[in-house]
Amino acid sequence: MAMIGALRRASCQSATSRKQEAPLLLGLAFARHISTGFREERDTFGPILVPSDKLWGAQTQRSLQNFEIGGERERMPEQIIRAFGILKKCAAKVNMDYGLDPTIGNAIMQAAQEVAEGKLDDHFPLVIWQTGSGTQSNMNANEVIANRAAEILGHKRGGKFVHPNDHVNKAQSSNDTFPTVMHIAAAVEINSRFVPSLKQLHTALHSKSVEFKDIVKIGRTHTQDATPLTLGQEFSGYTTQVKYGIDRVLDTLPRMYQLAQGGTAVGTGLNTKKGFDVKVAAAVAEETKLPFVTAENKFEALAAHDAFVETSGALNTVSVSLHKIANDIRLLGSGPRCGLGELILPENEPGSSIMPGKVNPTQCEALTMVCAQVMGNHTAITVGGLNGHFELNVYKPVIASNLLRSLRLLGDASISFEKNCVRGIQANQERISKLLHESLMLVTSLNTKIGYDKAAAVAKKAHKEGTTLKNAALGLGVLTGEEFDVLVVPHKMIGPSD
Amino acid sequence: MAMIGALRRASCQSATSRKQEAPLLLGLAFARHISTGFREERDTFGPILVPSDKLWGAQTQRSLQNFEIGGERERMPEQIIRAFGILKKCAAKVNMDYGLDPTIGNAIMQAAQEVAEGKLDDHFPLVIWQTGSGTQSNMNANEVIANRAAEILGHKRGGKFVHPNDHVNKAQSSNDTFPTVMHIAAAVEINSRFVPSLKQLHTALHSKSVEFKDIVKIGRTHTQDATPLTLGQEFSGYTTQVKYGIDRVLDTLPRMYQLAQGGTAVGTGLNTKKGFDVKVAAAVAEETKLPFVTAENKFEALAAHDAFVETSGALNTVSVSLHKIANDIRLLGSGPRCGLGELILPENEPGSSIMPGKVNPTQCEALTMVCAQVMGNHTAITVGGLNGHFELNVYKPVIASNLLRSLRLLGDASISFEKNCVRGIQANQERISKLLHESLMLVTSLNTKIGYDKAAAVAKKAHKEGTTLKNAALGLGVLTGEEFDVLVVPHKMIGPSD
Amino acid sequence: MAMIGALRRASCQSATSRKQEAPLLLGLAFARHISTGFREERDTFGPILVPSDKLWGAQTQRSLQNFEIGGERERMPEQIIRAFGILKKCAAKVNMDYGLDPTIGNAIMQAAQEVAEGKLDDHFPLVIWQTGSGTQSNMNANEVIANRAAEILGHKRGGKFVHPNDHVNKAQSSNDTFPTVMHIAAAVEINSRFVPSLKQLHTALHSKSVEFKDIVKIGRTHTQDATPLTLGQEFSGYTTQVKYGIDRVLDTLPRMYQLAQGGTAVGTGLNTKKGFDVKVAAAVAEETKLPFVTAENKFEALAAHDAFVETSGALNTVSVSLHKIANDIRLLGSGPRCGLGELILPENEPGSSIMPGKVNPTQCEALTMVCAQVMGNHTAITVGGLNGHFELNVYKPVIASNLLRSLRLLGDASISFEKNCVRGIQANQERISKLLHESLMLVTSLNTKIGYDKAAAVAKKAHKEGTTLKNAALGLGVLTGEEFDVLVVPHKMIGPSD
Amino acid sequence: MAMIGALRRASCQSATSRKQEAPLLLGLAFARHISTGFREERDTFGPILVPSDKLWGAQTQRSLQNFEIGGERERMPEQIIRAFGILKKCAAKVNMDYGLDPTIGNAIMQAAQEVAEGKLDDHFPLVIWQTGSGTQSNMNANEVIANRAAEILGHKRGGKFVHPNDHVNKAQSSNDTFPTVMHIAAAVEINSRFVPSLKQLHTALHSKSVEFKDIVKIGRTHTQDATPLTLGQEFSGYTTQVKYGIDRVLDTLPRMYQLAQGGTAVGTGLNTKKGFDVKVAAAVAEETKLPFVTAENKFEALAAHDAFVETSGALNTVSVSLHKIANDIRLLGSGPRCGLGELILPENEPGSSIMPGKVNPTQCEALTMVCAQVMGNHTAITVGGLNGHFELNVYKPVIASNLLRSLRLLGDASISFEKNCVRGIQANQERISKLLHESLMLVTSLNTKIGYDKAAAVAKKAHKEGTTLKNAALGLGVLTGEEFDVLVVPHKMIGPSD
Repeated sequence: MAMIGALRRASCQSATSRKQEAPLLLGLAFARHISTGFREERDTFGPILVPSDKLWGAQTQRSLQNFEIGGERERMPEQIIRAFGILKKCAAKVNMDYGLDPTIGNAIMQAAQEVAEGKLDDHFPLVIWQTGSGTQSNMNANEVIANRAAEILGHKRGGKFVHPNDHVNKAQSSNDTFPTVMHIAAAVEINSRFVPSLKQLHTALHSKSVEFKDIVKIGRTHTQDATPLTLGQEFSGYTTQVKYGIDRVLDTLPRMYQLAQGGTAVGTGLNTKKGFDVKVAAAVAEETKLPFVTAENKFEALAAHDAFVETSGALNTVSVSLHKIANDIRLLGSGPRCGLGELILPENEPGSSIMPGKVNPTQCEALTMVCAQVMGNHTAITVGGLNGHFELNVYKPVIASNLLRSLRLLGDASISFEKNCVRGIQANQERISKLLHESLMLVTSLNTKIGYDKAAAVAKKAHKEGTTLKNAALGLGVLTGEEFDVLVVPHKMIGPSD
Repeated sequence: MAMIGALRRASCQSATSRKQEAPLLLGLAFARHISTGFREERDTFGPILVPSDKLWGAQTQRSLQNFEIGGERERMPEQIIRAFGILKKCAAKVNMDYGLDPTIGNAIMQAAQEVAEGKLDDHFPLVIWQTGSGTQSNMNANEVIANRAAEILGHKRGGKFVHPNDHVNKAQSSNDTFPTVMHIAAAVEINSRFVPSLKQLHTALHSKSVEFKDIVKIGRTHTQDATPLTLGQEFSGYTTQVKYGIDRVLDTLPRMYQLAQGGTAVGTGLNTKKGFDVKVAAAVAEETKLPFVTAENKFEALAAHDAFVETSGALNTVSVSLHKIANDIRLLGSGPRCGLGELILPENEPGSSIMPGKVNPTQCEALTMVCAQVMGNHTAITVGGLNGHFELNVYKPVIASNLLRSLRLLGDASISFEKNCVRGIQANQERISKLLHESLMLVTSLNTKIGYDKAAAVAKKAHKEGTTLKNAALGLGVLTGEEFDVLVVPHKMIGPSD
Repeated sequence: MAMIGALRRASCQSATSRKQEAPLLLGLAFARHISTGFREERDTFGPILVPSDKLWGAQTQRSLQNFEIGGERERMPEQIIRAFGILKKCAAKVNMDYGLDPTIGNAIMQAAQEVAEGKLDDHFPLVIWQTGSGTQSNMNANEVIANRAAEILGHKRGGKFVHPNDHVNKAQSSNDTFPTVMHIAAAVEINSRFVPSLKQLHTALHSKSVEFKDIVKIGRTHTQDATPLTLGQEFSGYTTQVKYGIDRVLDTLPRMYQLAQGGTAVGTGLNTKKGFDVKVAAAVAEETKLPFVTAENKFEALAAHDAFVETSGALNTVSVSLHKIANDIRLLGSGPRCGLGELILPENEPGSSIMPGKVNPTQCEALTMVCAQVMGNHTAITVGGLNGHFELNVYKPVIASNLLRSLRLLGDASISFEKNCVRGIQANQERISKLLHESLMLVTSLNTKIGYDKAAAVAKKAHKEGTTLKNAALGLGVLTGEEFDVLVVPHKMIGPSD
Repeated sequence: MAMIGALRRASCQSATSRKQEAPLLLGLAFARHISTGFREERDTFGPILVPSDKLWGAQTQRSLQNFEIGGERERMPEQIIRAFGILKKCAAKVNMDYGLDPTIGNAIMQAAQEVAEGKLDDHFPLVIWQTGSGTQSNMNANEVIANRAAEILGHKRGGKFVHPNDHVNKAQSSNDTFPTVMHIAAAVEINSRFVPSLKQLHTALHSKSVEFKDIVKIGRTHTQDATPLTLGQEFSGYTTQVKYGIDRVLDTLPRMYQLAQGGTAVGTGLNTKKGFDVKVAAAVAEETKLPFVTAENKFEALAAHDAFVETSGALNTVSVSLHKIANDIRLLGSGPRCGLGELILPENEPGSSIMPGKVNPTQCEALTMVCAQVMGNHTAITVGGLNGHFELNVYKPVIASNLLRSLRLLGDASISFEKNCVRGIQANQERISKLLHESLMLVTSLNTKIGYDKAAAVAKKAHKEGTTLKNAALGLGVLTGEEFDVLVVPHKMIGPSD
């Protein structure tokens, strides 16, 4: 991709200026991925030069030149490209049912399959920051698939033996294909990567919850000492958060499985045949093994991306959960000597360039940073979602790319956190026990016996004098030592009484 | 409530300074709601003066003095107060099963019922900006109910015949009561106000969709002229957005119906008896006719408010939907002469103080402003949600108040929008028809006949020459007039073909 | 204000229905603030009944009935009302220069002064959720001032002896008055309350920084033990954050001091005389003692509220700073026995209803909740700001109310935090000293002597064996005891060396 | 970079497992950038294999393996890498003043210069999602520079002739270097790209404002017809927004120019010599020609990133401004026949794959999507900013990468919008004139003559009857035709009167 910048500059807007541009290219002769030359492609705007070794056509080339925003890092996410492969394959298949020449249709299917498998990623150079309908990425897919299909059939690139619009985009519009690939990409990502990653984290947290079920520790509320619980109970809260997080995302899928395809330009389905929408959705479902259906209202499916805002809201909730968990773990693992020190986190790397021996909760940090990013992405999606006009929301690429990034980052970070942190967490039982027995908050178990006010007096006395609760209770004469020992038993304070 | 500021200043921190404070009060003698004096209340911190005509006690009074933030407008939402009434009534009922003296228990139930009915709202002066666990509002409820119950039983205020902690708060902690009332308040608001309001809007939009089903109009994508659709189809998109919005909020209820009650201080249920949690949830369910259950994990229920973040995410989506709808309607209603002018919006008031005769889309404006607020509230909830520590999230009041405000505003604004705008929207059929027939985009119906490139040429020619598509097509010789008339029929362009 | 709901329902849309409504009112006869009856007011829409004891007119009454959104808690902020008083007074003064009858002009000035002083707050019942230009609140001000001025001159309410549009609103439009009062209200609030509050907090933090300047303590990075610093240095970081926060807000004032007044409907100044804009700004500057000027571009001043988005961005930064400070303080004050325990926070109230003796960092909690709210308000303002259309942004009330709320809450919470927390913070010197000397991180002072790798080995050995650094260093034979004692001196580790 | 994934998997955690990993690599023999083998690097954790052709060392390699989050697209921004080059060069220079061996120092300077120029970008493989202090990227810089400097001096990689910690990182900590490079990168980006880009846009808008200064058009408020203004005035509002936007960002620079360098681990400057901080800042200022200074409080500079939150707030405001401008332009350019149609936007590409001849406001769309992203990035930065703990904020990479992305995207998109849209905008004078003269809102010019109420009646009559204002005025008998013609002159309505 390092050539793209050069290509932007080198390629000229119309073929007539080819000569004067050519010398500019000489300096690039030894560059990697060298384009050995250019060919002319053509659209309704006229001819334009395109690098010979690339499959894209005129409209892609124009976008490349008109939207120099952000550089390669800002390219349309690969999941979108691959979903275009899936969709164009399915559309060709269904179009053959409606009369598309099978020779052409099958070549399109074969070429689209290559896109779906990521084999042609290098031919998708466009960035997110293009037309808000994703038209240019749709045309990129149409052009690449048309040229590749033509080659498969023994024709040359740019000859339009397979036509990007009339064949590959047949019965489609960018306005329905782009939302369709958004939904395909998101649903596939959720099912194939995000949910399995979260489940892996859930399993690890649950294991820890079981492993730690008998370790009684001090509870903390308001960051202050509180009544005890087990470390297993504490982790069970985290486990539940992740479990519900998975549920939250899954609950949004019914609306994510609805495909806009068949709505064409404004949702009416103009230029499609009856049943086309249902058949395409069925074909995508078969191809992906996911229960996609045609959207019950195509107007909503083009004009709004509420389904993405909704799923992003679920991811925002997941990121809130994971932030809480990771933040707790880093605080519980703080130390080694001057923090809480209840957890021992795995050492994965030297922590500091100046402080030898220091090991930092780096996985917690990576995860909480990802959570911050996901919350930010959610705002971007929300702003994009609220600004649709009439029959089309034209913030599609920003909405799609943010959701896909959130899914990827949360999934990957969950795995990294699980593998490099949670899995190896050990309880510092000595420290936990020491803190528990120094605590004043065991006093609450006296409540039912001596009443709230006297119990408070005992705690206050112990606090003031730096002594134990027992000494304070004896000093105030509210209990005997035996009574105290019977009442104050941390292991009996971790659940309701019979 | 105008007295509260005065009370803050007048009341002294300990009873010993009562004398010197008294003269300060003389100037208030003719004020409304005059407190005829003060009584002494007492907590573990010692005595404090409280206005005689108020039912609250020492801890409420301390909070009033310690948190002078924002003034009366910032008081804890009424829905929270009333939910405390419901909860304390149910807790007393269940506590009697576990041995609470029925005389006291029944008095608590009666007093709590008054709170639930809003009869004692004046006795809940605290603001949102207090302890993050809502402890002070819980104590406010305990103190008011204890004093009121004591009065019911013929005892005087402040005497603690009914004790706020030992009786009213029995087997409870602020840490489980406050999340419980959060869930009760939100679920009641969703069911009793929010969903019915959205349904009313949905019904009105659906009616318009049906009413407008035969009005063919120009579509617009990228704000540019596009292929036609019916005005009914356009409204069907809005209708679907609202329908899904209701679904989105309802889908979050399974987690909202889970009550933290029974977790007490840290989630373990210390100081409760087995079964208390289940019984309280059942009592609340019976009282509210909503399917509340006890939370399956009390640690999660205290330490996180993911359920609120999730529901807020759904409301964020609803606000995105409503913003899109209201924005479309104001643009479609723009004019009267220099805008799109396809819709005629009801005139509810004079629009401008300087421009006579101008009528503005004020309901759209109120609604879209509400949407902006809901998105803001969502950020506040998200920030509050992500910052929990250990066994307790201490952003409860900010989380609760924002969600309740979002629900109220979205519900009310939906009703107002429905009643004062949607219901009265008329189609400006003359204008719609004029625009439709001037449009160039009907050209897309030529695609299948003469191909994309020639169709484009026709449109470009008509555009350039300011003429009609038909003239352009004839001029280019690509079609006869008869062919054109057969092909270009807007009413045939609003759906797939057979 | 409790009557407003009733008024909404009771008042009828046109005077002709007065008879049938009347009986409805009987039940209200003993209510507080009773309206003894209604009078007829009239605008371009026709007649409407208005409560006799209220000064508002027809347009206010219509708004009251058309925007039943959110209830009394949602009323337009008082600062806006009072700024209307200031503006209308100044406009009348300048209008007299341009020919307004001095009898009427002076009466308007007197009535407006009463509004500015808050004496007529009860006559401003409208909520935020109205027309997005704030037209109805402008008309509310015009109507109240007109009626009050008429009374001052011996005429009766509703008679339009002083006309709300022709006199009070002379040479003005809602479109320039509302942004003008937004800027007046915000700038006054910033100068009179917000900045002084932040300065009070800054002073207190600075005092603590000085008080704690000799207390050496362990530093913490990644929440892990790090090299030492003084507690005073730690507080100096907080002090600097608040200092810069004040600067940040002050730096936005140049754009906040620009007034839209004189732009009238669309920014052109139609219906004003040359110089009107400059004179009004000068009058407002004189009245408020703040350096207001007329906006250099009135089109920007009406169509955008970037100045509010900018100031909100500064408040967002302040809230980020205060959240960091308050969060640190609660963690440093965590304990009493199982936390960090380096700070002792003032006890202001009993902390828990179940755990006697527990004292919570409630002021930190209130402040951090306020910060979350301010971040949320910032999102609402941003969404409102980005959605202006053409010559007018119609999210004015939501933008204004959120900024004013942020200013008020941050100011009040800063004072509360200062008074009830920061001022009383004590260092727990015993605990601080104990932690410091147990720390392993003093090892970094060995770096320059024995190199990074050996220093790391010493720290790791001490950590592994639970021993002191000195023992570990001796055990590894890298230093003598004397060398160690010379090198490891915490008091020498708190700054660069000579 | 395509090899990085493979490298992650291929490289083993310790050299002892080298043998079994080797066969895995055979399949990569023909890959691009092939690593011909591995060498052993070592840190305090022990040995680890690193690809022979890469300059990084052990700690970079560990990070690569421990943080497999997001893939190559998520790499640390290049601006950070290059700022490391600048900083390390300056630090070496200053360290030589304090005794660093000049041979080593000069070699470091030379190697660092290569990093600053981007020549070694391929040796910085780490992603954003690593330790929150950026330690691993600091070590990446130290390792690459040490190895490259060693090579320059004729030593081999990995031999630590130049030591990454003891030499390259001398007197530094990740905790002060990373915030320093954040500030350098942001300030350079602001000055070298962002501000020039915004100025280019400002100039273009200003030119259009001048070009259109005599075109009188209808104004629009509430999206409704309003009084006229010139198209030049409308564009002057946009121009002012951009001008103030530049000011807003520049106003944040005083705090951005403050460098943390010299604070080392916790802000105290331990392990530096007095004056080191000032000298480094001076060296960076000289190197970059920007007025960097040492931070007045290093504790704030490490523990908080308020300066980034503040600048992001300014960018958020800029994005609000640009969104408003771009949205207006697309709406004013809507059509070609059924929209407002006042502006003719440049045609850069075919607009739709199905609707021939349609040209869309794609540059507006790209820009408004960028604005949505910047608002999202602002949330991410805010969340990262508010969560610092004690002496260190550990959300540095997420904060830095979002701000740099916002700067880049806003800058690039402004240029693209200027070049491909604003520059070529033409006024559709025919359409503008037609709309202006059909408008009813010219009626406001009658206000001063016949009063508000009669003027309203004229407008209402014209509206109702679909006739002109003049006809209506004559019909109502409020004016003669001559009077009307004198009063209603759009060109006289675009400013205050004398």
